[in-house]
Amino acid sequence: MEKVREIVREGRRVGKEDPRRVVHAFKVGLALALVSSFYYYQPLYDNFGVNAMWAVMTVVVVFEFSVGATLGKGINRAVATLVAGGLGIGAHHLASFSGPTIEPILLAIFVFVQAALSTFVRFFPRVKARYDYGILIFILTFSLISVSGFREDEILELAHKRLSTVIMGGVSCVLISIFVCPVWAGQDLHSLLVSNFDTLSHFLLEFGDEYFEATEDGDIKEVEKRRRNLERYKVVLNSKSNEEALANFAKWEPRHGQFRFRHPWKQYLAVAALLRQCAYRIDALNSYINSDFQIPMDIKKKLEEPLRRMSTESGKSMKEASIGLKKMTKSSSSDIHVLNSQSACKALSTLLKSGILNDVEPLQMISLMTTISLLIDIVNLTEKISESVHELASAARFKNKMKPSVSSEKPDAGSLGRAVPIKSHDDDDHVVTILCDVDISNTIDDDDSIHEKH
Amino acid sequence: MEKVREIVREGRRVGKEDPRRVVHAFKVGLALALVSSFYYYQPLYDNFGVNAMWAVMTVVVVFEFSVGATLGKGINRAVATLVAGGLGIGAHHLASFSGPTIEPILLAIFVFVQAALSTFVRFFPRVKARYDYGILIFILTFSLISVSGFREDEILELAHKRLSTVIMGGVSCVLISIFVCPVWAGQDLHSLLVSNFDTLSHFLLEFGDEYFEATEDGDIKEVEKRRRNLERYKVVLNSKSNEEALANFAKWEPRHGQFRFRHPWKQYLAVAALLRQCAYRIDALNSYINSDFQIPMDIKKKLEEPLRRMSTESGKSMKEASIGLKKMTKSSSSDIHVLNSQSACKALSTLLKSGILNDVEPLQMISLMTTISLLIDIVNLTEKISESVHELASAARFKNKMKPSVSSEKPDAGSLGRAVPIKSHDDDDHVVTILCDVDISNTIDDDDSIHEKH
Repeated sequence: MEKVREIVREGRRVGKEDPRRVVHAFKVGLALALVSSFYYYQPLYDNFGVNAMWAVMTVVVVFEFSVGATLGKGINRAVATLVAGGLGIGAHHLASFSGPTIEPILLAIFVFVQAALSTFVRFFPRVKARYDYGILIFILTFSLISVSGFREDEILELAHKRLSTVIMGGVSCVLISIFVCPVWAGQDLHSLLVSNFDTLSHFLLEFGDEYFEATEDGDIKEVEKRRRNLERYKVVLNSKSNEEALANFAKWEPRHGQFRFRHPWKQYLAVAALLRQCAYRIDALNSYINSDFQIPMDIKKKLEEPLRRMSTESGKSMKEASIGLKKMTKSSSSDIHVLNSQSACKALSTLLKSGILNDVEPLQMISLMTTISLLIDIVNLTEKISESVHELASAARFKNKMKPSVSSEKPDAGSLGRAVPIKSHDDDDHVVTILCDVDISNTIDDDDSIHEKH
Repeated sequence: MEKVREIVREGRRVGKEDPRRVVHAFKVGLALALVSSFYYYQPLYDNFGVNAMWAVMTVVVVFEFSVGATLGKGINRAVATLVAGGLGIGAHHLASFSGPTIEPILLAIFVFVQAALSTFVRFFPRVKARYDYGILIFILTFSLISVSGFREDEILELAHKRLSTVIMGGVSCVLISIFVCPVWAGQDLHSLLVSNFDTLSHFLLEFGDEYFEATEDGDIKEVEKRRRNLERYKVVLNSKSNEEALANFAKWEPRHGQFRFRHPWKQYLAVAALLRQCAYRIDALNSYINSDFQIPMDIKKKLEEPLRRMSTESGKSMKEASIGLKKMTKSSSSDIHVLNSQSACKALSTLLKSGILNDVEPLQMISLMTTISLLIDIVNLTEKISESVHELASAARFKNKMKPSVSSEKPDAGSLGRAVPIKSHDDDDHVVTILCDVDISNTIDDDDSIHEKH
């Protein structure tokens, strides 16, 4: 009894997490009930007979959560069935020229060679990513057709019936998944990216308060809630496989909403990889907020102004990018924040040169310097992210934004004077640029460097 | 033509990367040729007729690369077919009590409810991890049996034949995958962990030379090769999904080699997660080796002794752990290196307190301090890793090692005097311990904190 209640609770949680799951379950039920009418409806049954089961089978195996995944599997299955059916008939034909004793041996050899070759091809990384299911169906159909052909005379008719039922099943899946509350993998990927931007920017905007303000032991629940809110960024750390799967599915999807057929999904992954790099730094920063080893507040306060500014300006830049992405508009309002954060970086370096930290203890120095180094990394990554978003915006042909809302969006940039481009070659700048290269050079393309081994 | 040559080249690469793939392809071919003999061999065909195709289908879908994956899928399929067959017959029976007009409607409702419920259950994370395939087959079999039962009178016989052919196909797969050049997922996971230890320890042992020795612009090829060797650790960064899949498969595997049926595969994942944490730090360290912004050698040299020792002793500790793991023996020889690295940590803190870095420029300071902080993190992680390996060794009941080979393994620990346990509460130590908590507290369990969303 307790067990049942637990399952119901789990079910409610799963459904609440994403209500579309409930809808999806209904859609599958609907498609299956529809396709099984092949058996009840006499004219259809007369036509296809027992082959109607291939329609049922196709629905069960092909119907996936998102349109892209369903389309991908459906197309894979249909094409593989077609090609394998043709080859299977060919193989059967070839074998039938030999005598009745050699025929089964020849067929067995065909099946063996075909299965071994196809299985090996499935290990190719590029095939595995997009056509794995197709190859599986290819092996299956070829074996079934060529072998069962040994018994049945009307092999052509069999192949034809099988193909048409498979296509009917596939088409039902695709139609239902597109027209009944569709779940677009592309839209999901887009929203995921936007929400990743949001959570990271939230952390960066709050970082200053968390790091520089003594924790008042007030309402514990309140503090807990803020912490949980702050640590939402952790989702970004492990979102890679999810993003890749979505991008892979999205490639199959037709035009929907504001997404074209050849929307630059790859660029989404590039932006997402940079965001994840940033999330790693944020994770490290977060451990300094929570660390038992706290640096005395008076030391921290010496650097508060530039550090706070570096973090909030990066956060604002990400917020702007997220807004632009959400509305799918080209927006340059994040650039100004990037520049501001870079000028804060410069201010910090001047401050450090003035010897303000000369009397700080070495162990506190380590902690402080690592925090600084992480923030510098984040500022640099923010610039790269901003560039990458611009690339995305032009590759995806986002609309131009008519009225930039810059002026209303940055209350404290004014007080610091307009940031000027710091690409000019004065001395400080040079140092900052060099400094800023530290720690990024090597980590940017980690994400792509390793193919998963089977 | 060029295309074909490219495919052949790719095939050779894939085969070379893991020659077992070629063997696997042959095994699948063999199983399929064997099972298709159901069609040729008259007595068998008389018995099963067209149902023989379920054996072919089972082989194609169930035969996976590793024994564990094959067993898992096979058991899932057999059990799901059995249960769904039973329920399907029940549903058919129930529906047949109603009149001939209501029967199809009732059956359609059954199919709908069953498909919707099962599809929803597939979203449960625990179900998805291990029984996803089983549920799929459940939906498939239930629909096919209950619906086709509407036509066929000998439904019991149909279910029986289908089940026995599925079991025959499944058993052929399992037997071939176990007895013909088996690929054990458990063994693979074990080897993967050992090799991860090796690559990380290689980096740590070489780090000193890379960081403290000026690069002689000698043989470029030689340098390239050393770099590539050093950067093998990058594989560890993204090995998570691979490890989880292997552990998941390994749970299905029977006793093999030195692995019991209930080998603590979960503990492997725990050790692997810590190793990955360490790899993140190493990745950051690596970027400091390659950075354009180099700290003058004379400043680095001031800290060379303790930093070198921290890195090499951590590396040695991992090397020992890897050797113990490989031989599956309990070994405490890594502990001494952990202690040595901790005492180096202590020496470093004393050195820093002496004000040796007072005249270093702030920007160099940032880079230097971050390097130090990363190495401290690594030392701390090394201790945790060592503990975790001990836990693994006792959970997996590794043999006790008779003769510890410690004395021969650590040439420079002698010159520094025996390391003493530093858990005593003198002042320095206290600081080091506190310091050592920095940056780890929060990141250890990241790996488990996020469930992949569908």
